[in-house]
Amino acid sequence: MRFASLAACLMLLIPVCADTAEEHDSPTLNLKPVPAQLELGEAAIDIGPEFSVTIEGNGATPRLRSGVQRMLRRLSDRSALFFDNATFLELEGRSMASMVVTANVKGKLGTNEDESYRLTITSDGIALQAATDIGALRGLETFLQLLSLDENGVTVPEITIYDEPRFPWRGLMIDSSRHFMPVAMVKRNLDGMAAVKLNVLHWHLVDDQGFRVESLAWPKLHEQASDGNFYTRAQIRDVIDYAAERGIRVVPEFDLPGHGSAWLTAYPELASAPGPYEIERSWGIFDPTINPTIEKTYEFLDALFAEMAELFDDEFIHIGGDENNGKHWLANPEIVAFMEERGYEGPLTLQRYFNERVLAIMTKYGKRMVGWDEIFEDGLPKNVVIQSWRGRESLFESARLGYSGILSNGYYIDLIHSTDDHYLNDPLPADSPLTPEEAARILGGEATMWAEYVSPETVDSRIWPRTAAIAERFWSPVWVRDLEDMYRRMDRISLMLEEFGLQHERNRPMMLRRLCQCRDVTALEVLLGAIEPVKVYNRGRLRKHTQFSPLTRMVDAAWPDAGPAREFRWAVERLIESDFMEEDNFDAVRNALITWSDNHAVLEETIRTSPALADIEAMSIALAEVSIIGLEALNVAIADDTENKEWLDLRLEGLDAARESHGQTELAMIDPVVDLVCAVALPASMAAEGCRKQDAPVVEHH
Amino acid sequence: MRFASLAACLMLLIPVCADTAEEHDSPTLNLKPVPAQLELGEAAIDIGPEFSVTIEGNGATPRLRSGVQRMLRRLSDRSALFFDNATFLELEGRSMASMVVTANVKGKLGTNEDESYRLTITSDGIALQAATDIGALRGLETFLQLLSLDENGVTVPEITIYDEPRFPWRGLMIDSSRHFMPVAMVKRNLDGMAAVKLNVLHWHLVDDQGFRVESLAWPKLHEQASDGNFYTRAQIRDVIDYAAERGIRVVPEFDLPGHGSAWLTAYPELASAPGPYEIERSWGIFDPTINPTIEKTYEFLDALFAEMAELFDDEFIHIGGDENNGKHWLANPEIVAFMEERGYEGPLTLQRYFNERVLAIMTKYGKRMVGWDEIFEDGLPKNVVIQSWRGRESLFESARLGYSGILSNGYYIDLIHSTDDHYLNDPLPADSPLTPEEAARILGGEATMWAEYVSPETVDSRIWPRTAAIAERFWSPVWVRDLEDMYRRMDRISLMLEEFGLQHERNRPMMLRRLCQCRDVTALEVLLGAIEPVKVYNRGRLRKHTQFSPLTRMVDAAWPDAGPAREFRWAVERLIESDFMEEDNFDAVRNALITWSDNHAVLEETIRTSPALADIEAMSIALAEVSIIGLEALNVAIADDTENKEWLDLRLEGLDAARESHGQTELAMIDPVVDLVCAVALPASMAAEGCRKQDAPVVEHH
Repeated sequence: MRFASLAACLMLLIPVCADTAEEHDSPTLNLKPVPAQLELGEAAIDIGPEFSVTIEGNGATPRLRSGVQRMLRRLSDRSALFFDNATFLELEGRSMASMVVTANVKGKLGTNEDESYRLTITSDGIALQAATDIGALRGLETFLQLLSLDENGVTVPEITIYDEPRFPWRGLMIDSSRHFMPVAMVKRNLDGMAAVKLNVLHWHLVDDQGFRVESLAWPKLHEQASDGNFYTRAQIRDVIDYAAERGIRVVPEFDLPGHGSAWLTAYPELASAPGPYEIERSWGIFDPTINPTIEKTYEFLDALFAEMAELFDDEFIHIGGDENNGKHWLANPEIVAFMEERGYEGPLTLQRYFNERVLAIMTKYGKRMVGWDEIFEDGLPKNVVIQSWRGRESLFESARLGYSGILSNGYYIDLIHSTDDHYLNDPLPADSPLTPEEAARILGGEATMWAEYVSPETVDSRIWPRTAAIAERFWSPVWVRDLEDMYRRMDRISLMLEEFGLQHERNRPMMLRRLCQCRDVTALEVLLGAIEPVKVYNRGRLRKHTQFSPLTRMVDAAWPDAGPAREFRWAVERLIESDFMEEDNFDAVRNALITWSDNHAVLEETIRTSPALADIEAMSIALAEVSIIGLEALNVAIADDTENKEWLDLRLEGLDAARESHGQTELAMIDPVVDLVCAVALPASMAAEGCRKQDAPVVEHH
Repeated sequence: MRFASLAACLMLLIPVCADTAEEHDSPTLNLKPVPAQLELGEAAIDIGPEFSVTIEGNGATPRLRSGVQRMLRRLSDRSALFFDNATFLELEGRSMASMVVTANVKGKLGTNEDESYRLTITSDGIALQAATDIGALRGLETFLQLLSLDENGVTVPEITIYDEPRFPWRGLMIDSSRHFMPVAMVKRNLDGMAAVKLNVLHWHLVDDQGFRVESLAWPKLHEQASDGNFYTRAQIRDVIDYAAERGIRVVPEFDLPGHGSAWLTAYPELASAPGPYEIERSWGIFDPTINPTIEKTYEFLDALFAEMAELFDDEFIHIGGDENNGKHWLANPEIVAFMEERGYEGPLTLQRYFNERVLAIMTKYGKRMVGWDEIFEDGLPKNVVIQSWRGRESLFESARLGYSGILSNGYYIDLIHSTDDHYLNDPLPADSPLTPEEAARILGGEATMWAEYVSPETVDSRIWPRTAAIAERFWSPVWVRDLEDMYRRMDRISLMLEEFGLQHERNRPMMLRRLCQCRDVTALEVLLGAIEPVKVYNRGRLRKHTQFSPLTRMVDAAWPDAGPAREFRWAVERLIESDFMEEDNFDAVRNALITWSDNHAVLEETIRTSPALADIEAMSIALAEVSIIGLEALNVAIADDTENKEWLDLRLEGLDAARESHGQTELAMIDPVVDLVCAVALPASMAAEGCRKQDAPVVEHH
C-alpha cells in the first residue's frame, strides 16, 4: 500500500486511527477535521421534531445564539425535520432541552484564544461544553458532521469528543485583486471556512491589478484603480461582522512596496519611476514600485493606515512585501543617491528601511505586522509574523531567531497540485528539528487562493473541497495522515459544503452546458474525470491570459484533482500488487478504460458543433488512445502472456506522446496506464521500479 | 393541434409568425421576448477574436459603456474567445469597430421612456441604434440572444430588427419579507430581468413577517422587526444603482395598513388593538392593523416616507393596501366612534380615509402612489396606479374611470401554475372591450414572487425560466402566442440565464444530493420529471409551514412545470390524434412510460435509506403504477383491440386514486394516461370528449 502508515497514537481516549480497510467502521466517521480525541459508543441517538437546544454560561453571547440558530437551520434543512418556531426562538433558560450548549466566557478573536470544546452525546442527552463561545461554535460544526441520515432515520452516534486545534492560525487567503470577488463569494467561503474550523481570512485586497477597498483618506485608490470593483467601507464592515459571527478573523493585505501598479495608477507621485501608470491587466511580476525615499510616501501611508487600522479591527495588518524586483529603484538616480548616502548595499536594504518605517506606522495605530518572507530580517521587533511562500526551512530559520511564522508554501491551491501534496505538507512535521519553544512559534498556515485563473464562477471549485484537507492539517493531530480515509471524508464534506451556497460542485455541469449549449453533458463529464488543468505555472506559459480572458473553458471546469482518475490510479496499484488476481480491481480498471476508450465517439459530434470545445478535441482523442493501450495491457494480463521489449517501447512511446497538453489540460490517467503496460511487459522486479518519468517541482510566488 | 393559432400579422417588415412545424427555421430564432419586427437574411456573420465595439452619440453614457462591457464579457465567456484588452477598455472613438452602438440621449428611468432600438447585422458591419441608452441596453440583450455557437463557429445571423415594448411597465415583484432574500439574490435576478427586457423591480419589503429596510427615522422597525435580516441604506442604494445600470426601476412596497405585524412589533403605539405584537411566523391573513384614526400614525408615516422618498429615487412608492380584514378596527370602540362620527359605512370607507392621508404624504414628497386593487376608489387623483391581483375585469373597470393599472392576476408564479397559463394571460387581449384611450391606461403587468414557500436556494427556480415567458407577454406583440415555440425558446433562455449566477438549474441536483446524501441522483431526477408541487394554495393546506420550516424536500426541488411530463403530454396528444399510427410519438410515449414504470425499483433503496425522502415513497410507487396502466393501454392499441367499459372503469379508478398528493407533490402525467386509456377503450367520438375531471381554479392574494 502506498498510504502513509499512522504514527504511534498515545492519547487519553481512543485515538483516531483510521482503519482504511473498513471504512464504515472507521472512528474518523465523517469528521473533517478529525478531532483530537474521541470515544465512540454503540448507540445511535434519534433526532426528531422535538429536538431543542438551550444555551448556558457567561459565554452565551449573541454570536453563540446565532451560531446555534444557523446549526438548527442546517439540521432542519438537511433532515427535512419540521421544528416548531420555539426551537429557533427560545434558546435560553429552556429546561429539558435535548442539547445543552455551555460556554464559560465570550471569546476574543485572536491568536491566543481557547477554541477547545467537549461534546458528549448519550441517550441521556447532548452536552457541548466550551471555555469560549468560539470553542462552542467549533463544536456545533462537529455536531452537524456527526448527523447521520440513513435507514435508522435521523441520528447522531453515542460519542465523547474532546477537541482543540493543533495550530492557532488556520487561514485561507482570498485574492480579490486579480479578479474581483463579490461580497457573496467571500461570505459563502467564510461559511465553508467555519465548517472546517479555519479561523483566519487573509484578504489580499491590493495588487497590480486593482485596489479593492474604498478609502476616504485617498479616494483615488478605489476610484481610479479598481474599475469600479471595490468593497465599500460598509461592505468591509459587513464581511468582518459576518466572519466574527463565525469565529473568524479578517487580516487585510495591502501589498507594498512592489506589486505597485494600482497604487501608482491613483497616486503616481509616490512612484519610483516617472510613469504614467495604469492598472495591470496581465499576470506576473512587474516593475512599478512605491518610492521609499520620499517623506510623502510615509505621510500617505500614515493617513491610509490610520483609516484602515480603524476599519479592520484585527490585531494584524499584512503588508505584503513580496517580489519587489528593485528595477525602478536602481533606475532612479535620486533613489540610488539615497541608498549611497546611507550605505545601503542594494534594494533589499532599502526595503528593510521601508519596512521599518511602515512598521512604525503600524505600531502607532496599534497593529502588528505580517508580511511574506521578504520582509524578514533579524533585528525586526519580535511581534511581526512571517508568512512563508518560500518554504518550511525559511520559516524554521525565523522561528530559531525568535519570530513567529505561518506556512503557505505547499498550500498554493491555485497551482492545481493534488490534495495529497497539500495534505501531507505539515507546517511542523513530527520529526521537525525545532525545540519546543521554537516550535511554538509556528503559528499554523494558510491556503492561498491567488486569483489569476479564477472567476467568481470557478473560484469555489479551486478552494473546495481541497481546502478541507488543508484545514485538517492545521487542526488535527500530526499523526492524522491516512490519504484514503482523508479522500473518503473529503468527498462527504464536499457535499455538506454545498449547504452554504458554495458553487464548487454545482457550477461544473452548468459550465459544461454552456460549452456545448446543450443539456446532456454526460460525455463531457466522463472526459473531465480523466483530465486535469496543467499544473504549477504552466497555464500562463501555454497561453497568455489577462484579466479579460474567459475562464469558461474545459480547463476551468476541470477538477484540480480528478476523482475518477484518482480512483483509477488506486485500482491499478492494487491490481498490480495482486498480480492481476483481484477481480474487483480488475473490473474497476477495465470498466474505466472501456468508458474512456468509447467516450470520444460519443463526444465527437458535440465537439464538432461547439467552437468553445475545439481546443479539447485532441485531448478527447488522446484519452481514447491511452485507454485502448490500457485495455491491451489487460488483455495481455488475462492471456498470461509476457510481451516483449518492442511491444513495450511502442506503447510507452504512444503514452508519452499523449502527455502533450491541449487546451491547457493534461491527461490525469497516463501514469497508471504506464504502470499497467510495464507490469505486463517487464519482470515483476523491474516493473515495481516503474518506467515513469518524474518531473521536478517548480516553486513560484504571485 | 392544441396550440393557439396566430392572429393576423400585418407589419412593415416580415412579421414574426413562428412556424411550429419547422422549429429550426422559425424566424423567432432563440429570441425571448420576440421582437416587434424582424427580417432575417441568409448569411451568418463571424464573430472572431478581432471583434470590437464603439459607442457613439450623446447617449454614450457610463451606463451604456458598462452595458457594452458586460455584453463583451458574456460574449467572451460563452464563446471562449480571447479578446485583447483594448476590446474592453477602448469603447469610444474607435474607427473600424465591428459593431457601432449609437444612442441619441441618456434615458430617464420612468414609465414614458423610449426603449426602442434597431439592430442591423450585415456582412458590412453591425449597427445598434437607439433613441436612448436604455433602448441600446435592450438591443445588446437581443444581440447576445442572436449569438450562435455551432459547426459554423461563432456567428450572428444577417438580420434587421426593429423592436419596442408593447407595455411600459414590465415587472417582477420580489417578496423579501416572508423569507429574507440576500442582496446577491436580488442582483442576479436583476440581471435575469434585464436579459428578458423587464424594467421594474417591485420590491415587497414589508409584511407581517418582517420589515426589511433600515430606517434612520424609526430604527426599531429594522432593529426589532427583522431578526437582523434587513437591507442597510447602503445596500438599498447599491441595488438601486445596479438596477439603474440595467435600465430597471425599483419600486419599493411598504404594505399598509393591514399586514401590520412587523410595523406594530416595533411601534405598538400605532396599533388598532392593544397587542403585544410579534413578528408573524406563519402564512395567511392576520389581524394586526395600523390605527388610521390617530394623528401619531400620520406623523410617523410622514417621517418615514420623507426618508424613504429620498432613499428610493423612483417616481413611485407602493403602499400595498391589500387584505385589511378590518377586525381590529371594528373591535376598537374609539375607531368605531371615529367612523360613526364621520358617517363611514365600514372599514372600506375608513381605509379610503387612510389612503387619502397617505397619498397626501406621498404627494408632499414628490411621489406617485401604487397600491393593490383595494386602494382603488373613484375620486382618487388620476395619477395613482392600481395593481390588480383580482383580475383583468377590475383593471378594466379602473381604466374606464381614467386610472392607470398593471395586471398581476395570472402572473402569481408562486402558485405553481403551468407556464401556458401565465403566457396566454394577456393584460390587454386583442379582443379587449377598451377604447384605445382606455387601453393606453393598461401600463403592463408584474409577475409576483411571493416568498412563503421559497428560500434563497429555491427562489430562482420559481422565477426562472417561467418569468421569461411572462416577460415576453409584456414586451412582444399581442399575436405572439405559439406555445410550443415559446417552450422551445424558454428552454434555450433558461440555459443562457445561468450566466448570471442564477441557480434555477444548478440547485436542483444539489438539493437531490442533499436529500439522498449521495452523488448519483439519476432516479430522483426521473421522478422529478413526472411530478410537480401541488398547485395554488394547497401546499399550506396539506402541511402547516412557518418561516422556520425546511424548504429542502422533493416538493422544493420539483419543477413548477415539469418538462418531461409536458413532453409526454404532447406526445400522447399527437399519438391519439394520429390514431396511434405515428411511430415517433408512439416510441416517445412508450419510452417515457417504461422509464417511469421501472424507476421505483431503482429508487426504492435510496428512499429506504433517506429519511428526508420518506414522504415521497408513495409518489414513486404511484408513478410506476400509473405508467404500467399507460403501457397496458399501448399494448391494447398495438393489438388493435377495443377494451370494454369494465376494463376502462377499473383503470380510471386506479388513475383517480393516484391523484392523491404525497409530500405536497402531485403526479403531472396522469391526465395523458387517462386520455390514453380512454382512447383505446372508447369510440373515437367519446374519447375526444375525454374522461378527465376538471378542477375549478382558485384565486387568492398574499
